[in-house]
Amino acid sequence: MKQLLLIGIGPGDPRQVTYEAVEAMQRATVFFVLDKGATRDELVQLRKAILARYLPEGGYRLVQVDDPRRDADAQDYAGAVHAWHQQRAALYAHLIEDELGAGDIGAFLLWGEPGLYDSTLRILDLVRARGVALVLTVIPGISSVQALAARHQVPLNRIGEPLTLLPGRRLVEQGRVDNLVVMLDGQCAFAALDDPGLYIYWGAYLGTADEVLIAGPLQAVKARILEVREQVRRRKGWIMDTYLLRREG
Amino acid sequence: MKQLLLIGIGPGDPRQVTYEAVEAMQRATVFFVLDKGATRDELVQLRKAILARYLPEGGYRLVQVDDPRRDADAQDYAGAVHAWHQQRAALYAHLIEDELGAGDIGAFLLWGEPGLYDSTLRILDLVRARGVALVLTVIPGISSVQALAARHQVPLNRIGEPLTLLPGRRLVEQGRVDNLVVMLDGQCAFAALDDPGLYIYWGAYLGTADEVLIAGPLQAVKARILEVREQVRRRKGWIMDTYLLRREG
Repeated sequence: MKQLLLIGIGPGDPRQVTYEAVEAMQRATVFFVLDKGATRDELVQLRKAILARYLPEGGYRLVQVDDPRRDADAQDYAGAVHAWHQQRAALYAHLIEDELGAGDIGAFLLWGEPGLYDSTLRILDLVRARGVALVLTVIPGISSVQALAARHQVPLNRIGEPLTLLPGRRLVEQGRVDNLVVMLDGQCAFAALDDPGLYIYWGAYLGTADEVLIAGPLQAVKARILEVREQVRRRKGWIMDTYLLRREG
Repeated sequence: MKQLLLIGIGPGDPRQVTYEAVEAMQRATVFFVLDKGATRDELVQLRKAILARYLPEGGYRLVQVDDPRRDADAQDYAGAVHAWHQQRAALYAHLIEDELGAGDIGAFLLWGEPGLYDSTLRILDLVRARGVALVLTVIPGISSVQALAARHQVPLNRIGEPLTLLPGRRLVEQGRVDNLVVMLDGQCAFAALDDPGLYIYWGAYLGTADEVLIAGPLQAVKARILEVREQVRRRKGWIMDTYLLRREG
Protein backbone atom coordinates (compact mmCIF):
# COMPACT_ATOMS: atom_id res chain seq x y z
CA MET A 1 0.00 0.00 0.00
CA LYS A 2 1.34 3.44 -0.96
CA GLN A 3 0.52 6.33 1.36
CA LEU A 4 -0.46 9.59 -0.30
CA LEU A 5 -1.49 12.98 1.06
CA LEU A 6 -3.51 15.38 -1.10
CA ILE A 7 -2.88 18.72 0.54
CA GLY A 8 -4.92 21.80 -0.35
CA ILE A 9 -2.58 24.80 0.04
CA GLY A 10 -4.92 27.66 -0.79
CA PRO A 11 -4.86 30.09 -3.71
CA GLY A 12 -1.30 31.41 -3.35
CA ASP A 13 -0.85 33.34 -0.12
CA PRO A 14 1.30 31.13 2.14
CA ARG A 15 -0.64 32.43 5.14
CA GLN A 16 -3.84 30.95 3.64
CA VAL A 17 -2.58 27.47 4.53
CA THR A 18 -4.13 25.55 7.44
CA TYR A 19 -2.30 24.06 10.40
CA GLU A 20 -3.64 20.67 9.28
CA ALA A 21 -1.94 21.15 5.89
CA VAL A 22 1.38 21.97 7.54
CA GLU A 23 1.12 18.93 9.83
CA ALA A 24 0.56 16.84 6.71
CA MET A 25 3.58 18.45 4.99
CA GLN A 26 5.66 17.54 8.04
CA ARG A 27 4.65 13.88 7.66
CA ALA A 28 5.44 13.71 3.94
CA THR A 29 8.82 12.46 2.73
CA VAL A 30 8.31 12.94 -1.03
CA PHE A 31 6.53 15.85 -2.73
CA PHE A 32 5.29 15.40 -6.29
CA VAL A 33 5.23 18.66 -8.24
CA LEU A 34 3.48 18.41 -11.59
CA ASP A 35 2.77 21.41 -13.75
CA LYS A 36 2.77 22.29 -17.38
CA GLY A 37 3.11 25.17 -19.78
CA ALA A 38 3.51 28.81 -18.94
CA THR A 39 2.33 28.56 -15.35
CA ARG A 40 4.86 25.90 -14.49
CA ASP A 41 7.92 27.78 -13.30
CA GLU A 42 6.05 30.30 -11.24
CA LEU A 43 3.72 27.78 -9.61
CA VAL A 44 6.66 25.50 -8.81
CA GLN A 45 8.45 28.45 -7.18
CA LEU A 46 5.36 29.33 -5.12
CA ARG A 47 5.17 25.75 -3.83
CA LYS A 48 8.87 25.70 -3.03
CA ALA A 49 8.38 28.95 -1.09
CA ILE A 50 5.58 27.33 0.93
CA LEU A 51 7.76 24.29 1.68
CA ALA A 52 10.72 26.51 2.62
CA ARG A 53 8.50 28.51 4.97
CA TYR A 54 6.87 25.60 6.76
CA LEU A 55 9.62 22.95 6.49
CA PRO A 56 12.76 25.07 6.95
CA GLU A 57 14.73 22.00 8.06
CA GLY A 58 14.17 20.23 4.74
CA GLY A 59 14.20 16.46 5.14
CA TYR A 60 12.06 15.68 2.08
CA ARG A 61 12.53 14.89 -1.58
CA LEU A 62 10.94 16.94 -4.39
CA VAL A 63 9.99 15.03 -7.53
CA GLN A 64 9.34 17.48 -10.33
CA VAL A 65 7.76 16.20 -13.55
CA ASP A 66 6.06 17.78 -16.54
CA ASP A 67 2.36 17.02 -16.62
CA PRO A 68 1.10 15.82 -20.05
CA ARG A 69 -0.79 18.48 -22.00
CA ARG A 70 -4.43 18.15 -22.94
CA ASP A 71 -5.33 18.25 -26.63
CA ALA A 72 -6.91 21.73 -26.63
CA ASP A 73 -8.03 21.43 -30.28
CA ALA A 74 -10.03 18.22 -29.81
CA GLN A 75 -13.66 18.40 -30.99
CA ASP A 76 -14.84 16.06 -28.24
CA TYR A 77 -14.11 17.95 -25.02
CA ALA A 78 -15.10 15.25 -22.52
CA GLY A 79 -13.29 12.60 -24.59
CA ALA A 80 -10.11 14.67 -24.76
CA VAL A 81 -10.22 15.24 -20.99
CA HIS A 82 -10.70 11.51 -20.35
CA ALA A 83 -7.78 10.60 -22.63
CA TRP A 84 -5.63 13.20 -20.91
CA HIS A 85 -6.60 11.84 -17.48
CA GLN A 86 -5.57 8.33 -18.56
CA GLN A 87 -2.17 9.65 -19.67
CA ARG A 88 -1.75 11.39 -16.34
CA ALA A 89 -2.86 8.23 -14.49
CA ALA A 90 -0.16 6.22 -16.27
CA LEU A 91 2.44 8.82 -15.32
CA TYR A 92 1.28 9.09 -11.70
CA ALA A 93 1.18 5.28 -11.32
CA HIS A 94 4.83 5.09 -12.46
CA LEU A 95 5.87 7.94 -10.18
CA ILE A 96 4.15 6.43 -7.16
CA GLU A 97 5.59 2.96 -7.83
CA ASP A 98 9.10 4.23 -8.54
CA GLU A 99 9.52 7.06 -6.07
CA LEU A 100 7.74 5.84 -2.93
CA GLY A 101 9.75 3.23 -1.06
CA ALA A 102 8.77 1.41 2.13
CA GLY A 103 8.14 4.00 4.84
CA ASP A 104 7.74 6.86 2.38
CA ILE A 105 4.72 9.13 2.44
CA GLY A 106 4.01 10.94 -0.82
CA ALA A 107 2.25 14.28 -1.08
CA PHE A 108 0.68 16.46 -3.74
CA LEU A 109 0.46 20.18 -2.92
CA LEU A 110 -2.75 21.25 -4.66
CA TRP A 111 -3.72 24.86 -5.34
CA GLY A 112 -6.98 25.88 -3.74
CA GLU A 113 -9.31 23.13 -2.60
CA PRO A 114 -8.69 19.48 -3.65
CA GLY A 115 -12.44 18.87 -4.10
CA LEU A 116 -13.12 21.82 -6.41
CA TYR A 117 -12.16 21.78 -10.09
CA ASP A 118 -9.05 19.74 -9.37
CA SER A 119 -8.60 16.38 -11.08
CA THR A 120 -6.07 14.72 -8.76
CA LEU A 121 -8.66 12.65 -6.86
CA ARG A 122 -10.11 11.38 -10.15
CA ILE A 123 -6.69 10.55 -11.53
CA LEU A 124 -5.80 8.61 -8.39
CA ASP A 125 -9.01 6.58 -8.90
CA LEU A 126 -7.62 5.67 -12.33
CA VAL A 127 -4.24 4.86 -10.73
CA ARG A 128 -6.04 2.45 -8.38
CA ALA A 129 -7.83 0.93 -11.37
CA ARG A 130 -4.36 0.18 -12.76
CA GLY A 131 -3.69 -1.99 -9.72
CA VAL A 132 -1.76 0.42 -7.49
CA ALA A 133 -3.04 0.15 -3.90
CA LEU A 134 -3.28 3.60 -2.26
CA VAL A 135 -4.10 4.90 1.19
CA LEU A 136 -5.23 8.51 0.76
CA THR A 137 -5.65 11.42 3.12
CA VAL A 138 -7.30 14.58 1.78
CA ILE A 139 -6.69 17.95 3.46
CA PRO A 140 -9.06 20.78 2.47
CA GLY A 141 -7.65 24.15 1.39
CA ILE A 142 -8.94 27.68 0.85
CA SER A 143 -10.20 27.94 -2.74
CA SER A 144 -9.72 30.98 -4.97
CA VAL A 145 -13.52 31.42 -4.77
CA GLN A 146 -13.26 32.02 -1.03
CA ALA A 147 -10.31 34.38 -1.50
CA LEU A 148 -12.39 36.28 -4.09
CA ALA A 149 -15.35 36.68 -1.73
CA ALA A 150 -13.11 37.71 1.19
CA ARG A 151 -11.19 40.31 -0.81
CA HIS A 152 -14.40 41.83 -2.21
CA GLN A 153 -16.07 41.47 1.22
CA VAL A 154 -19.15 40.02 -0.39
CA PRO A 155 -21.13 36.88 0.59
CA LEU A 156 -21.13 34.18 -2.09
CA ASN A 157 -24.82 33.48 -1.62
CA ARG A 158 -27.74 35.62 -0.56
CA ILE A 159 -30.35 34.70 2.05
CA GLY A 160 -31.86 31.33 1.23
CA GLU A 161 -30.66 31.42 -2.40
CA PRO A 162 -28.73 28.71 -4.27
CA LEU A 163 -25.15 29.31 -5.39
CA THR A 164 -23.81 27.68 -8.55
CA LEU A 165 -20.16 27.21 -9.49
CA LEU A 166 -19.32 26.33 -13.07
CA PRO A 167 -16.55 26.41 -15.65
CA GLY A 168 -16.60 29.28 -18.16
CA ARG A 169 -17.61 27.03 -21.05
CA ARG A 170 -20.90 26.24 -19.29
CA LEU A 171 -21.88 29.88 -18.75
CA VAL A 172 -23.60 30.34 -22.11
CA GLU A 173 -25.99 27.42 -21.40
CA GLN A 174 -26.97 28.98 -18.09
CA GLY A 175 -30.48 30.43 -17.95
CA ARG A 176 -31.18 33.18 -15.45
CA VAL A 177 -28.11 34.14 -13.41
CA ASP A 178 -28.64 34.95 -9.72
CA ASN A 179 -25.54 33.87 -7.78
CA LEU A 180 -22.93 32.29 -10.02
CA VAL A 181 -19.22 31.70 -9.59
CA VAL A 182 -17.33 31.11 -12.82
CA MET A 183 -13.95 29.36 -12.86
CA LEU A 184 -11.57 28.41 -15.66
CA ASP A 185 -12.98 30.97 -18.09
CA GLY A 186 -10.16 31.48 -20.57
CA GLN A 187 -12.65 32.77 -23.15
CA CYS A 188 -14.09 35.58 -20.99
CA ALA A 189 -17.66 34.32 -21.38
CA PHE A 190 -18.89 37.12 -19.10
CA ALA A 191 -18.21 39.63 -21.88
CA ALA A 192 -21.03 38.15 -23.99
CA LEU A 193 -23.71 38.67 -21.31
CA ASP A 194 -25.87 41.74 -21.97
CA ASP A 195 -28.17 41.49 -18.94
CA PRO A 196 -28.24 45.01 -17.37
CA GLY A 197 -29.14 43.65 -13.89
CA LEU A 198 -25.87 41.80 -13.31
CA TYR A 199 -23.05 42.79 -11.00
CA ILE A 200 -19.58 41.24 -11.28
CA TYR A 201 -16.87 40.68 -8.64
CA TRP A 202 -13.71 39.68 -10.54
CA GLY A 203 -10.26 38.74 -9.29
CA ALA A 204 -7.01 37.39 -10.75
CA TYR A 205 -3.91 35.87 -9.10
CA LEU A 206 -5.83 35.89 -5.83
CA GLY A 207 -3.67 35.63 -2.75
CA THR A 208 -0.46 36.52 -4.61
CA ALA A 209 1.51 39.75 -4.96
CA ASP A 210 -0.04 40.20 -8.43
CA GLU A 211 -3.64 40.13 -7.19
CA VAL A 212 -6.05 42.32 -9.19
CA LEU A 213 -9.66 43.02 -8.19
CA ILE A 214 -12.43 44.75 -10.13
CA ALA A 215 -16.10 44.97 -9.16
CA GLY A 216 -19.12 46.83 -10.47
CA PRO A 217 -22.19 46.60 -12.69
CA LEU A 218 -21.19 44.09 -15.39
CA GLN A 219 -22.06 46.34 -18.34
CA ALA A 220 -20.13 49.27 -16.84
CA VAL A 221 -16.94 47.38 -15.96
CA LYS A 222 -16.63 44.51 -18.42
CA ALA A 223 -14.51 46.46 -20.92
CA ARG A 224 -12.12 47.41 -18.13
CA ILE A 225 -11.87 43.81 -16.91
CA LEU A 226 -11.07 42.63 -20.47
CA GLU A 227 -8.40 45.30 -20.82
CA VAL A 228 -6.75 44.76 -17.43
CA ARG A 229 -6.96 40.99 -17.82
CA GLU A 230 -5.17 41.11 -21.16
CA GLN A 231 -2.48 43.45 -19.80
CA VAL A 232 -1.62 41.29 -16.80
CA ARG A 233 -1.87 38.05 -18.79
CA ARG A 234 0.64 39.35 -21.32
CA ARG A 235 2.97 40.58 -18.63
CA LYS A 236 3.04 37.25 -16.74
CA GLY A 237 2.45 34.88 -19.65
CA TRP A 238 -0.48 33.20 -17.89
CA ILE A 239 -3.54 34.08 -15.85
CA MET A 240 -5.73 32.47 -13.20
CA ASP A 241 -8.94 34.39 -12.56
CA THR A 242 -12.42 33.82 -11.23
CA TYR A 243 -15.56 35.86 -10.71
CA LEU A 244 -18.92 36.04 -9.02
CA LEU A 245 -21.94 37.19 -11.05
CA ARG A 246 -24.95 38.37 -9.12
CA ARG A 247 -28.28 39.93 -9.91
CA GLU A 248 -28.66 42.99 -7.74
CA GLY A 249 -32.13 43.20 -6.19
CA MET B 1 -14.03 54.22 12.32
CA LYS B 2 -14.36 50.88 14.09
CA GLN B 3 -12.01 48.09 13.00
CA LEU B 4 -13.54 44.64 12.66
CA LEU B 5 -12.11 41.28 11.60
CA LEU B 6 -14.43 38.55 10.27
CA ILE B 7 -12.38 35.41 10.79
CA GLY B 8 -13.41 32.08 9.24
CA ILE B 9 -12.26 29.37 11.65
CA GLY B 10 -13.28 26.25 9.77
CA PRO B 11 -15.87 23.62 10.64
CA GLY B 12 -14.65 22.67 14.14
CA ASP B 13 -11.22 21.02 14.01
CA PRO B 14 -8.78 23.60 15.44
CA ARG B 15 -6.17 22.34 12.99
CA GLN B 16 -8.43 23.41 10.09
CA VAL B 17 -7.64 27.06 10.87
CA THR B 18 -5.31 29.02 8.58
CA TYR B 19 -2.18 30.90 9.59
CA GLU B 20 -3.86 34.05 8.28
CA ALA B 21 -6.76 33.48 10.71
CA VAL B 22 -4.36 33.09 13.63
CA GLU B 23 -2.47 36.26 12.66
CA ALA B 24 -5.83 38.05 12.63
CA MET B 25 -6.71 36.62 16.08
CA GLN B 26 -3.38 37.94 17.37
CA ARG B 27 -4.31 41.45 16.19
CA ALA B 28 -7.77 41.42 17.77
CA THR B 29 -8.34 42.86 21.22
CA VAL B 30 -12.06 42.08 21.59
CA PHE B 31 -13.83 38.91 20.44
CA PHE B 32 -17.60 38.95 19.99
CA VAL B 33 -19.20 35.58 20.62
CA LEU B 34 -22.85 35.41 19.64
CA ASP B 35 -24.83 32.20 19.64
CA LYS B 36 -28.27 31.05 20.55
CA GLY B 37 -30.27 28.06 21.64
CA ALA B 38 -29.04 24.52 22.07
CA THR B 39 -25.80 24.92 20.10
CA ARG B 40 -24.68 27.88 22.18
CA ASP B 41 -22.71 26.39 25.04
CA GLU B 42 -20.86 23.85 22.94
CA LEU B 43 -19.98 26.27 20.12
CA VAL B 44 -18.81 28.88 22.65
CA GLN B 45 -16.57 26.23 24.25
CA LEU B 46 -15.14 25.23 20.86
CA ARG B 47 -14.27 28.86 20.12
CA LYS B 48 -12.72 29.31 23.55
CA ALA B 49 -10.62 26.20 22.88
CA ILE B 50 -9.40 27.69 19.59
CA LEU B 51 -8.50 30.96 21.32
CA ALA B 52 -6.74 29.11 24.16
CA ARG B 53 -4.75 27.07 21.63
CA TYR B 54 -3.60 29.95 19.43
CA LEU B 55 -3.55 32.81 21.97
CA PRO B 56 -2.23 31.04 25.07
CA GLU B 57 -1.01 34.35 26.53
CA GLY B 58 -4.53 35.80 26.59
CA GLY B 59 -4.50 39.58 26.24
CA TYR B 60 -7.99 39.92 24.77
CA ARG B 61 -11.54 40.49 25.96
CA LEU B 62 -14.39 38.09 25.19
CA VAL B 63 -17.83 39.66 24.80
CA GLN B 64 -20.47 36.97 24.97
CA VAL B 65 -24.05 37.86 24.06
CA ASP B 66 -27.18 35.91 23.19
CA ASP B 67 -28.13 36.31 19.54
CA PRO B 68 -31.84 37.12 18.99
CA ARG B 69 -33.89 34.16 17.78
CA ARG B 70 -35.61 34.09 14.43
CA ASP B 71 -39.39 33.60 14.39
CA ALA B 72 -39.38 30.01 13.10
CA ASP B 73 -43.19 29.92 12.78
CA ALA B 74 -43.46 32.95 10.49
CA GLN B 75 -45.37 32.35 7.24
CA ASP B 76 -43.16 34.76 5.29
CA TYR B 77 -39.69 33.19 5.46
CA ALA B 78 -37.73 35.99 3.75
CA GLY B 79 -39.62 38.63 5.75
CA ALA B 80 -38.90 36.85 9.04
CA VAL B 81 -35.21 36.57 8.15
CA HIS B 82 -35.03 40.26 7.26
CA ALA B 83 -36.72 41.28 10.52
CA TRP B 84 -34.34 39.03 12.44
CA HIS B 85 -31.34 40.55 10.65
CA GLN B 86 -32.51 44.05 11.62
CA GLN B 87 -32.76 42.95 15.26
CA ARG B 88 -29.26 41.54 15.07
CA ALA B 89 -27.97 44.69 13.34
CA ALA B 90 -29.33 46.82 16.20
CA LEU B 91 -27.60 44.54 18.72
CA TYR B 92 -24.29 44.45 16.80
CA ALA B 93 -24.31 48.23 16.36
CA HIS B 94 -24.66 48.68 20.13
CA LEU B 95 -21.94 46.13 20.87
CA ILE B 96 -19.52 47.70 18.41
CA GLU B 97 -20.20 51.22 19.70
CA ASP B 98 -20.03 50.22 23.37
CA GLU B 99 -17.25 47.64 23.43
CA LEU B 100 -14.69 48.94 20.95
CA GLY B 101 -12.68 51.85 22.29
CA ALA B 102 -9.95 53.81 20.52
CA GLY B 103 -7.21 51.39 19.45
CA ASP B 104 -9.44 48.31 19.84
CA ILE B 105 -9.81 45.78 17.05
CA GLY B 106 -12.95 43.67 17.21
CA ALA B 107 -13.29 40.17 15.79
CA PHE B 108 -16.00 37.66 15.03
CA LEU B 109 -14.90 34.02 14.91
CA LEU B 110 -17.19 32.53 12.27
CA TRP B 111 -17.70 28.80 11.73
CA GLY B 112 -16.75 27.59 8.29
CA GLU B 113 -16.39 30.20 5.56
CA PRO B 114 -17.63 33.80 6.13
CA GLY B 115 -18.93 34.01 2.52
CA LEU B 116 -21.04 30.86 2.60
CA TYR B 117 -24.43 30.73 4.34
CA ASP B 118 -23.25 33.08 7.05
CA SER B 119 -25.12 36.33 7.63
CA THR B 120 -22.49 38.39 9.45
CA LEU B 121 -21.38 40.36 6.35
CA ARG B 122 -24.99 41.22 5.56
CA ILE B 123 -25.70 42.26 9.14
CA LEU B 124 -22.64 44.51 9.17
CA ASP B 125 -24.01 46.18 6.01
CA LEU B 126 -27.12 46.98 8.05
CA VAL B 127 -24.92 48.21 10.91
CA ARG B 128 -23.25 50.60 8.47
CA ALA B 129 -26.68 51.72 7.27
CA ARG B 130 -27.37 52.69 10.90
CA GLY B 131 -24.48 55.14 10.71
CA VAL B 132 -21.66 53.10 12.30
CA ALA B 133 -18.46 53.51 10.23
CA LEU B 134 -16.61 50.20 9.91
CA VAL B 135 -13.29 49.07 8.44
CA LEU B 136 -13.62 45.35 7.71
CA THR B 137 -11.15 42.58 7.00
CA VAL B 138 -12.51 39.20 5.92
CA ILE B 139 -10.44 36.03 6.41
CA PRO B 140 -11.64 32.94 4.51
CA GLY B 141 -12.07 29.65 6.37
CA ILE B 142 -12.54 25.97 5.50
CA SER B 143 -16.28 25.33 5.09
CA SER B 144 -18.06 22.19 6.26
CA VAL B 145 -18.64 21.41 2.56
CA GLN B 146 -14.89 21.12 2.04
CA ALA B 147 -14.49 19.01 5.18
CA LEU B 148 -17.27 16.76 3.87
CA ALA B 149 -15.57 16.24 0.50
CA ALA B 150 -12.16 15.65 2.12
CA ARG B 151 -13.45 13.08 4.61
CA HIS B 152 -15.36 11.20 1.91
CA GLN B 153 -12.41 11.65 -0.49
CA VAL B 154 -14.78 12.70 -3.25
CA PRO B 155 -14.53 15.70 -5.61
CA LEU B 156 -17.40 18.17 -5.21
CA ASN B 157 -17.80 18.55 -8.96
CA ARG B 158 -17.18 16.25 -11.90
CA ILE B 159 -15.29 17.10 -15.08
CA GLY B 160 -16.73 20.27 -16.58
CA GLU B 161 -19.98 20.00 -14.62
CA PRO B 162 -21.63 22.74 -12.55
CA LEU B 163 -21.91 22.40 -8.77
CA THR B 164 -24.84 23.91 -6.90
CA LEU B 165 -25.03 24.63 -3.17
CA LEU B 166 -28.41 25.32 -1.64
CA PRO B 167 -30.33 25.30 1.63
CA GLY B 168 -32.51 22.26 2.33
CA ARG B 169 -35.75 24.18 1.83
CA ARG B 170 -34.82 24.81 -1.81
CA LEU B 171 -34.15 21.14 -2.61
CA VAL B 172 -37.75 20.27 -3.52
CA GLU B 173 -37.85 22.99 -6.22
CA GLN B 174 -34.69 21.60 -7.79
CA GLY B 175 -35.16 19.85 -11.10
CA ARG B 176 -32.62 17.23 -12.12
CA VAL B 177 -29.89 16.72 -9.52
CA ASP B 178 -26.34 16.15 -10.80
CA ASN B 179 -23.90 17.67 -8.29
CA LEU B 180 -25.66 19.29 -5.39
CA VAL B 181 -24.51 20.25 -1.91
CA VAL B 182 -27.31 20.77 0.61
CA MET B 183 -26.78 22.81 3.77
CA LEU B 184 -29.09 23.76 6.63
CA ASP B 185 -31.53 20.91 5.98
CA GLY B 186 -33.27 20.48 9.31
CA GLN B 187 -36.20 18.78 7.56
CA CYS B 188 -34.14 16.02 5.87
CA ALA B 189 -35.40 16.92 2.41
CA PHE B 190 -33.19 14.19 0.89
CA ALA B 191 -35.52 11.55 2.36
CA ALA B 192 -38.30 12.61 -0.01
CA LEU B 193 -36.22 12.05 -3.17
CA ASP B 194 -37.04 8.77 -4.89
CA ASP B 195 -34.61 9.01 -7.83
CA PRO B 196 -32.77 5.64 -7.98
CA GLY B 197 -29.71 7.16 -9.73
CA LEU B 198 -28.60 9.32 -6.80
CA TYR B 199 -25.67 8.77 -4.49
CA ILE B 200 -25.35 10.63 -1.17
CA TYR B 201 -22.28 11.62 0.85
CA TRP B 202 -23.52 12.76 4.25
CA GLY B 203 -21.66 14.10 7.28
CA ALA B 204 -22.51 15.64 10.65
CA TYR B 205 -20.39 17.57 13.20
CA LEU B 206 -17.61 17.62 10.60
CA GLY B 207 -14.18 18.30 12.01
CA THR B 208 -15.23 17.57 15.60
CA ALA B 209 -14.84 14.52 17.85
CA ASP B 210 -18.50 13.66 17.15
CA GLU B 211 -18.08 13.51 13.35
CA VAL B 212 -20.34 10.95 11.62
CA LEU B 213 -20.08 10.00 7.93
CA ILE B 214 -22.39 7.88 5.78
CA ALA B 215 -22.20 7.40 2.01
CA GLY B 216 -23.94 5.17 -0.49
CA PRO B 217 -26.79 4.98 -3.00
CA LEU B 218 -29.43 7.35 -1.63
CA GLN B 219 -32.28 4.82 -1.66
CA ALA B 220 -30.12 2.21 0.10
CA VAL B 221 -28.78 4.43 2.88
CA LYS B 222 -31.35 7.12 3.49
CA ALA B 223 -33.17 5.20 6.26
CA ARG B 224 -29.85 4.67 8.06
CA ILE B 225 -28.94 8.37 7.76
CA LEU B 226 -32.34 9.35 9.22
CA GLU B 227 -31.88 6.92 12.10
CA VAL B 228 -28.28 7.86 12.92
CA ARG B 229 -29.05 11.57 12.51
CA GLU B 230 -31.92 11.36 15.01
CA GLN B 231 -29.79 9.38 17.50
CA VAL B 232 -26.90 11.82 17.50
CA ARG B 233 -29.18 14.86 17.44
CA ARG B 234 -31.00 13.62 20.56
CA ARG B 235 -27.77 12.82 22.35
CA LYS B 236 -26.23 16.26 21.73
CA GLY B 237 -29.40 18.35 21.64
CA TRP B 238 -28.47 19.88 18.27
CA ILE B 239 -27.03 18.87 14.91
CA MET B 240 -25.07 20.46 12.08
CA ASP B 241 -24.96 18.32 8.96
CA THR B 242 -24.47 18.67 5.23
CA TYR B 243 -24.45 16.38 2.21
CA LEU B 244 -23.50 16.01 -1.43
CA LEU B 245 -26.01 14.45 -3.83
CA ARG B 246 -24.65 13.15 -7.10
CA ARG B 247 -26.00 11.22 -10.05
CA GLU B 248 -23.69 8.30 -10.66
CA GLY B 249 -22.92 7.88 -14.35
